[in-house]
Amino acid sequence: MSFITFQSKDAANLANTNSCAKAVVLLSGGLDSATCLAIAKTQGYECYGLSFDYGQRNRSELGAAVRLAKQMQISMHKIIKLDMSEIGGSALTDSSIAVPEHETHGIPITYVPARNTVFLSYALAWAEVLGAEAIYIGVNALDYSGYPDCRPDFISAFQIMANLATKASVEGRELKILTPLIDMSKSQIIVTGLKLGIDYSATVSCYQADAVGRACGKCDSCRFRSKGFLEANNFDPTHYQTL
Amino acid sequence: MSFITFQSKDAANLANTNSCAKAVVLLSGGLDSATCLAIAKTQGYECYGLSFDYGQRNRSELGAAVRLAKQMQISMHKIIKLDMSEIGGSALTDSSIAVPEHETHGIPITYVPARNTVFLSYALAWAEVLGAEAIYIGVNALDYSGYPDCRPDFISAFQIMANLATKASVEGRELKILTPLIDMSKSQIIVTGLKLGIDYSATVSCYQADAVGRACGKCDSCRFRSKGFLEANNFDPTHYQTL
Repeated sequence: MSFITFQSKDAANLANTNSCAKAVVLLSGGLDSATCLAIAKTQGYECYGLSFDYGQRNRSELGAAVRLAKQMQISMHKIIKLDMSEIGGSALTDSSIAVPEHETHGIPITYVPARNTVFLSYALAWAEVLGAEAIYIGVNALDYSGYPDCRPDFISAFQIMANLATKASVEGRELKILTPLIDMSKSQIIVTGLKLGIDYSATVSCYQADAVGRACGKCDSCRFRSKGFLEANNFDPTHYQTL
Repeated sequence: MSFITFQSKDAANLANTNSCAKAVVLLSGGLDSATCLAIAKTQGYECYGLSFDYGQRNRSELGAAVRLAKQMQISMHKIIKLDMSEIGGSALTDSSIAVPEHETHGIPITYVPARNTVFLSYALAWAEVLGAEAIYIGVNALDYSGYPDCRPDFISAFQIMANLATKASVEGRELKILTPLIDMSKSQIIVTGLKLGIDYSATVSCYQADAVGRACGKCDSCRFRSKGFLEANNFDPTHYQTL
C-alpha cells in the first residue's frame, strides 16, 4: 500500500500539462534529499516527491519527509510501503542488529542490500507514468558511509539500464538520473541548502532517531552531519536524545 | 509485508551452507516461470522462489506460484507485497483499463511500467542476503507481448548495474541474471518443460484469469499459450471460463 501525503490543488491538472518538465525526487527526510529537492526546484523541474516506508529503524524520517514536501510546496508527495525488513541483512531494517556508534572499516552493517536499486526502480515506474524527464537522488560519494549504491558508476549503470527498461525509452523519451550532491562535501551541501532557504530543523539524518526525531549523535550519519555543520560554520538545529 | 509460503525443513540450514550454489528464481505462477524454475534446478542450483503480490488483476497466479513451489520442492518461496497499482499506467494493475482481447500494435496496455526492473531489484536484494550466484527470470523475446523489459539488451544492462550495486559485488562476488527462455519459441518452452516433468495444469498464464484460475482464452498471454501447445502437439490443460 502507498499513500499520498500531499498534493497541490493543481497537481492533477499539472500532471496532464507540459508547462514544465517533471522530475521524481527521492525524499528520505534527511539533509541530503532535502537539499537535492531544493536544487531540482531551482533547476526548473516540477517536482514529485517519493518516499518509502520500507521497515526502516528510523521511522521519524518519514514525518520529516512529509514536513519537507509541504514546506517546499512540491506538486505531489507519495509514500510507498515496501517491506525490506523481510529481506533483512542490515542494521537499518533488522532491529536485532545494532547500529555502529563509532567508525568501522569497510562497508558498514547499516548498508541495506540493493536499497537504492529498489528505490530508483520504483521512481522509474512513477517517472514513466508521469512522463517525467528526470529522477533526482541525493547520493553523495564523499562524506558518506561507503555504500556501493551511492557511487557514480552505479548511477551511470542504472541510467543506461533505465533507458532500456521502459515503453517511454522505446518511444525515444530519455530519462536522466541526476545526482547534484555526488561530488560535494557535507559542508558544501549544507551551505548550498541554506542559500536555497532549506529549514534543516525539519530534516532527520540519524540512523536511529527516536520517535520524535531526536538524534543519537553517535552513528555515521550523525557524525557526518555534525562535522558538516562545523565546517560550514553554521548552527546545526538537530535535537539530540542525550541533551 | 511479505510472507513465506513454503520452506523446506532444511532451508534454514541450507541457507548457511555452501553445499551448492543458490539462485533466486522469479516465479509468477505462469508457464514460463515454471519452466525457468525447472531449468534452474537441472542446472544444479538450490532454488529460492520469489513472487510478488503487486496489485495484479490476475490474483490466481499467486496460488499457482504457491502450488509450483511445493510441487517442485524448492528451498523457500517468498511472496513480497508491493503496491504497483498506486503507480498505475497498466491494464494489469488498474481495473478501469480493459485487457485487450485481440492483437494490438506496439507495446500493449498490459505493460506494467518498470515491473521487471522492480522485481529484479528485489531479487537482487534477496540474492545478496542469501549469497546467491544467480537470478533466473523467465523472460522471452520471441512469443511475447513486446514488453521492453523482456529484451536481451535490458537484461544485460541490469546485470551490469547489479554488479555495481551491492556490497557483494564490491567484495568480488559476481551475480548472473539468467534467462534460459529468452530465445525459445513458446512451443520449445513447453516441450522443454514437459521433458522436465512440469505439471502445466498447476500454472496460470491468463492476464485476467478468474478467482479459480480459469483463463479468458482471448488475451495475448492466452493466445501465445494456446498457439504454443498446438505447435508442440500437446494438450493444454488450461481451464477456460467459457467452456
